[in-house]
Amino acid sequence: MIDLNADLGESFGTYTMGNDACMMSHITSANIACGFHAGDPMVMQRTVELALKHDVAVGAHPGYPDLQGFGRRQMRLSSEEIMAMLLYQAGALKAFLQACGGKLQHLKPHGALYNEAAVDEPLAMAVAKATSLLGTDVILVGPPDSALSKAAEHCSIPYAREVFADRAYESNGRLVDRRKEGALIHDVDLCIQRMLTMINGQPIESIDGHALHLKGDTICLHGDHPQAIVFAGVLKKAMQESQISLAPLHKLLKIDG
Amino acid sequence: MIDLNADLGESFGTYTMGNDACMMSHITSANIACGFHAGDPMVMQRTVELALKHDVAVGAHPGYPDLQGFGRRQMRLSSEEIMAMLLYQAGALKAFLQACGGKLQHLKPHGALYNEAAVDEPLAMAVAKATSLLGTDVILVGPPDSALSKAAEHCSIPYAREVFADRAYESNGRLVDRRKEGALIHDVDLCIQRMLTMINGQPIESIDGHALHLKGDTICLHGDHPQAIVFAGVLKKAMQESQISLAPLHKLLKIDG
Amino acid sequence: MIDLNADLGESFGTYTMGNDACMMSHITSANIACGFHAGDPMVMQRTVELALKHDVAVGAHPGYPDLQGFGRRQMRLSSEEIMAMLLYQAGALKAFLQACGGKLQHLKPHGALYNEAAVDEPLAMAVAKATSLLGTDVILVGPPDSALSKAAEHCSIPYAREVFADRAYESNGRLVDRRKEGALIHDVDLCIQRMLTMINGQPIESIDGHALHLKGDTICLHGDHPQAIVFAGVLKKAMQESQISLAPLHKLLKIDG
Amino acid sequence: MIDLNADLGESFGTYTMGNDACMMSHITSANIACGFHAGDPMVMQRTVELALKHDVAVGAHPGYPDLQGFGRRQMRLSSEEIMAMLLYQAGALKAFLQACGGKLQHLKPHGALYNEAAVDEPLAMAVAKATSLLGTDVILVGPPDSALSKAAEHCSIPYAREVFADRAYESNGRLVDRRKEGALIHDVDLCIQRMLTMINGQPIESIDGHALHLKGDTICLHGDHPQAIVFAGVLKKAMQESQISLAPLHKLLKIDG
Repeated sequence: MIDLNADLGESFGTYTMGNDACMMSHITSANIACGFHAGDPMVMQRTVELALKHDVAVGAHPGYPDLQGFGRRQMRLSSEEIMAMLLYQAGALKAFLQACGGKLQHLKPHGALYNEAAVDEPLAMAVAKATSLLGTDVILVGPPDSALSKAAEHCSIPYAREVFADRAYESNGRLVDRRKEGALIHDVDLCIQRMLTMINGQPIESIDGHALHLKGDTICLHGDHPQAIVFAGVLKKAMQESQISLAPLHKLLKIDG
Repeated sequence: MIDLNADLGESFGTYTMGNDACMMSHITSANIACGFHAGDPMVMQRTVELALKHDVAVGAHPGYPDLQGFGRRQMRLSSEEIMAMLLYQAGALKAFLQACGGKLQHLKPHGALYNEAAVDEPLAMAVAKATSLLGTDVILVGPPDSALSKAAEHCSIPYAREVFADRAYESNGRLVDRRKEGALIHDVDLCIQRMLTMINGQPIESIDGHALHLKGDTICLHGDHPQAIVFAGVLKKAMQESQISLAPLHKLLKIDG
Repeated sequence: MIDLNADLGESFGTYTMGNDACMMSHITSANIACGFHAGDPMVMQRTVELALKHDVAVGAHPGYPDLQGFGRRQMRLSSEEIMAMLLYQAGALKAFLQACGGKLQHLKPHGALYNEAAVDEPLAMAVAKATSLLGTDVILVGPPDSALSKAAEHCSIPYAREVFADRAYESNGRLVDRRKEGALIHDVDLCIQRMLTMINGQPIESIDGHALHLKGDTICLHGDHPQAIVFAGVLKKAMQESQISLAPLHKLLKIDG
Repeated sequence: MIDLNADLGESFGTYTMGNDACMMSHITSANIACGFHAGDPMVMQRTVELALKHDVAVGAHPGYPDLQGFGRRQMRLSSEEIMAMLLYQAGALKAFLQACGGKLQHLKPHGALYNEAAVDEPLAMAVAKATSLLGTDVILVGPPDSALSKAAEHCSIPYAREVFADRAYESNGRLVDRRKEGALIHDVDLCIQRMLTMINGQPIESIDGHALHLKGDTICLHGDHPQAIVFAGVLKKAMQESQISLAPLHKLLKIDG
């Protein structure tokens, strides 16, 4: 059993990004932008409605207050500022969920915040604490074996390990920097084979040729990728053939019974 | 019995506005700005903590997305945009309340949104509907006998009538335009006498000399007024002497038993 | 002789809008967004470079401070606020022009500001005054016979009358409201025929069948329209065949000798 | 001869910061915020008018796009983004200067941008290049012997060395970190004595007791400091007594003849 997630609700005003309606039919969990790096109240409203209609579990996808940089530019905020900004964004999303009869399943930090919190302990602690304040059953999503996973353990909150189908990994389990040759895997069949291998508990190959045991609860599909929808369809089919079933994180992690 | 409210949490980043700590000890309900026209996540966090410490009930004070104009400049938004922007702002505030063990008592629109919703029916309906989606027990605060009070009735949500101690009224019950001579009442004793008269069910005098029966559940104190704290203290004392007791709106309106 | 203009530089951060590179080869004047309703410093830099490369004259296209509403939502600002916000935006654009060896040809207000200034005299005066403060040779662009054209005359600044090829007109010369049936003309041939008729000094037909004498110095092409580039190409060809030559506004109006 | 500068125009909308009117009568150069970390178009307009009225030379004081953090939070922007954001902000300020008959004297980066550009070479080069694109006679202001001063030399643009009267220095000439004990000098007499010593070419004492030869062209007065105006007055008087005359940077550095 595995979860498929995608970053959605990234449009803003008249600006459109991604194809949320198509992605929704392929995933089990949606990470919805909360208006700081992408998304706006109207987009959030519509994306929550769309997710609930497709029976897709909803998570908050908060980022730095930097629409122009799409939350991908590093910012130095204090732990207090991080916590307050996460509560604010996730709280806003919860209002749309409450209005539609839905529930917040998880929180996954976005962009630069995700990357930094994966390695920066105080930042990871701030993210984990904010998540715990959103409800005891809210799952934090981040990379396996990272500062975030440790912070989640420390705060005793549920944690879901995220892996990327289309990204190469270093032998230490970190993602290869995007700017490095080979960081992105363009061959769809190879991506899918790697994911199946990983789900079956076998090692995949790191960029420098070592065997890497990677354990993931959820696979991230990139909604802004031109081929995202094709890829999502092929991956889903391959999983069905391999009798791997899809389930949202809260079922996978047995949160709420 | 009456409620005293004030607009608080209006600082932003390094910019300070009002004296929230002092005001808290005089009021029973706080309207907290939600980051669109004033306030930011850190300010909201601190203001919620301060309110709970002083046992002051908390309401959302959402406004137009216009920090530069402090939400006082009219903007034309669709009903859908209004509803989404209110859910967003109030939801963000609820996250801080939940994290601190508090509860959202009411919603009071700010500035231009308040003034327009008092007379514009579709706008008032959007505000009332958004309030109803925040919880069946969330009180909408607005002027007596206004488009807002009618919309609240139509949506079957609790409504609190707000009056101003330091403002003159037209004989139809509307506030005299700020730019008109005599709109603001500077004499503290007169302000207090008018409020006591009103609470005792007697008519006050409109700006053009007519008897005006005004019924209010809550009196707004202006936190940004230089004499606000002095005034709040004198008003509170006068009420005690007249054996008028202070209570937050949810007690006054007997929401939640 | 006529000018062809288009609204460009409307992308923001990672959000893309329009196809500026294609449009540039068809127009003689570009209206570049200035970061308030669309555009950002990087987008402005690139759009100015692109315009100069294509020998297209550059104008400022300032709007309300409302990125989420794309400057299409009415806002009530004082005349002082309008003037300051126009100087700010146009000044920012001038810095990119100066850095690239270019010059500001014109200013055309965007969206709700354009529509309101066409009929609101104090607003039109604020726009004309701000334009005059940007340099005596900066041309104001707006509808023919409007509050804007009168304000320009009053301020003794050059004015260019803008007409729309794909929009129907009322018999009083105003654009038909977009929401009204027949407001948009979808037939490319009809659009072009109307423009040629107008350029030749003949009356076109208003939506209610009257003869309308419309005089324009510049025709607006909608860059965000799916068929914009096809249309621009066909229009340009039709003009060449009719021996109508294209020239930027400053040549048309003989500004700077 | 020396210049006295202060950071002004830092109010925003209804939020007030500093006492610009008082400071103007004590300084020779004003650094005016440009709307990204502080200031807005109306505030810029008024501050430029105020400066010209007091015959104070005007510089741009651009910062990161972070109003909430007042430009004091580090952000990672590319060199291209830095240059574009500096041209944008300084260009906006130039429009107000042009409208009032003034001229841009200098550019001084604000907050985190100042601190980082003092030590980060690529960032310093981006700042220096942007300054050079604003006009050959625009002076870059920054710390003595820093990455910024080197970048200015490399770009062949005029540079003014800024020193702080109320801050302690390390023996390498860097400012002592604000969080370190003794970083701020509260004794007004000591501040003034240090400045007079420095102006007379004598060494001042570093925080660890070494003789430090510091050369400055301009002294920064902190406008947001509660005692700023008192201090400015005393410093000015002390200088007059020591026959040190005050002059704006462009006279000091003999820019424009």
